[in-house]
Amino acid sequence: MRLHELTPAPNPRRVRVFLAEKGVQIPSVQVDVFKGENRTPEFLKKNPSGKIPVLELDDGTCIAESIAICRYVEALNPEPNLFGRNPVETAQIEMRNRQLEFELMGPVSVAWVNGPVIAQMAPGMFKQIPDALAAAEANIARFYQRIDNELASREFMGGDRFSVADITALCVTDFATERVGVARDPGLANLARWHAAVSARPSAKA
Amino acid sequence: MRLHELTPAPNPRRVRVFLAEKGVQIPSVQVDVFKGENRTPEFLKKNPSGKIPVLELDDGTCIAESIAICRYVEALNPEPNLFGRNPVETAQIEMRNRQLEFELMGPVSVAWVNGPVIAQMAPGMFKQIPDALAAAEANIARFYQRIDNELASREFMGGDRFSVADITALCVTDFATERVGVARDPGLANLARWHAAVSARPSAKA
Repeated sequence: MRLHELTPAPNPRRVRVFLAEKGVQIPSVQVDVFKGENRTPEFLKKNPSGKIPVLELDDGTCIAESIAICRYVEALNPEPNLFGRNPVETAQIEMRNRQLEFELMGPVSVAWVNGPVIAQMAPGMFKQIPDALAAAEANIARFYQRIDNELASREFMGGDRFSVADITALCVTDFATERVGVARDPGLANLARWHAAVSARPSAKA
Repeated sequence: MRLHELTPAPNPRRVRVFLAEKGVQIPSVQVDVFKGENRTPEFLKKNPSGKIPVLELDDGTCIAESIAICRYVEALNPEPNLFGRNPVETAQIEMRNRQLEFELMGPVSVAWVNGPVIAQMAPGMFKQIPDALAAAEANIARFYQRIDNELASREFMGGDRFSVADITALCVTDFATERVGVARDPGLANLARWHAAVSARPSAKA
């Protein structure tokens, strides 16, 4: 088994943090998307989306999409449970993980492809739309405010214990802050408390 | 239990088709998003995202996000299985469902909010970005071409049998064609074959 990934990218980090929480080690292969290594015919056979990460099994079966990979890893390594232990908890973790993906990771991706960092790092890689950047920044700020409100009444993103939803939130907030240049308002105290707690876990270094 | 939804919207339809495949009936409540019924303080307590559908359980617990709702329904009603029967199949269905969501439903949503139909139906509801509409239309066309290629070697979206990934694909392609006004290229024969097959299932009328 091997993991095709790129260390600085946020989605591969989700899988690495998940593996660290599980205590599972999988050898990794770096795929340099800036050199187009994700667009070769060979890579597109592994994942027609041309995206990383991709988990390649020993029989050649490939699983793309971070959450699909994590769910596969959880099926083989059930503990510690990170996707939920009963129908309601599982549904709530899924709901909140998806809201983080669509309503935070989505706008952060839009801010990334339309922002100044990628424009300098890889000129012409994306046709940039300034209005889309401004809309994304407003959406990110609104989501942070909302999640800060929600974290007043629960300790973690998915509920009262650490779950895959916290891994999504950690990787996307760190990517937004450190790479995209979209900061969190430090006055959002619940969000700051949550971020400090999950950043202190050993898995956060993955 | 009751389902908060809006009949013409694509995500509530995903849940209705899923319920029809399961043979499960849940009473529904219409939420008129054009009248802002999804933005009332009462509704935002059910789902802070302000999105439909939301499944409200008898104890008041609310589950938002179509796929979280479907997964909850599958946990209570395991057959017919629509999410996968073993770790690899489950991962592949999840992967393909997610690719349909991010790479087809995503651009279709962008085309919808930036397109002429919503501009006429609800003037000013969204700040429209013409460049975003054009980029979305190109992404949709590219994805249809790619999925047509993939459907040359498997019968359904998720693999060799009908799954939740087909429900996502059916609802988003029909929404794109019928409501957004973005047509499929009729020359994509595998996609046309797949669409005819899933549209002929009784659940497609849900």
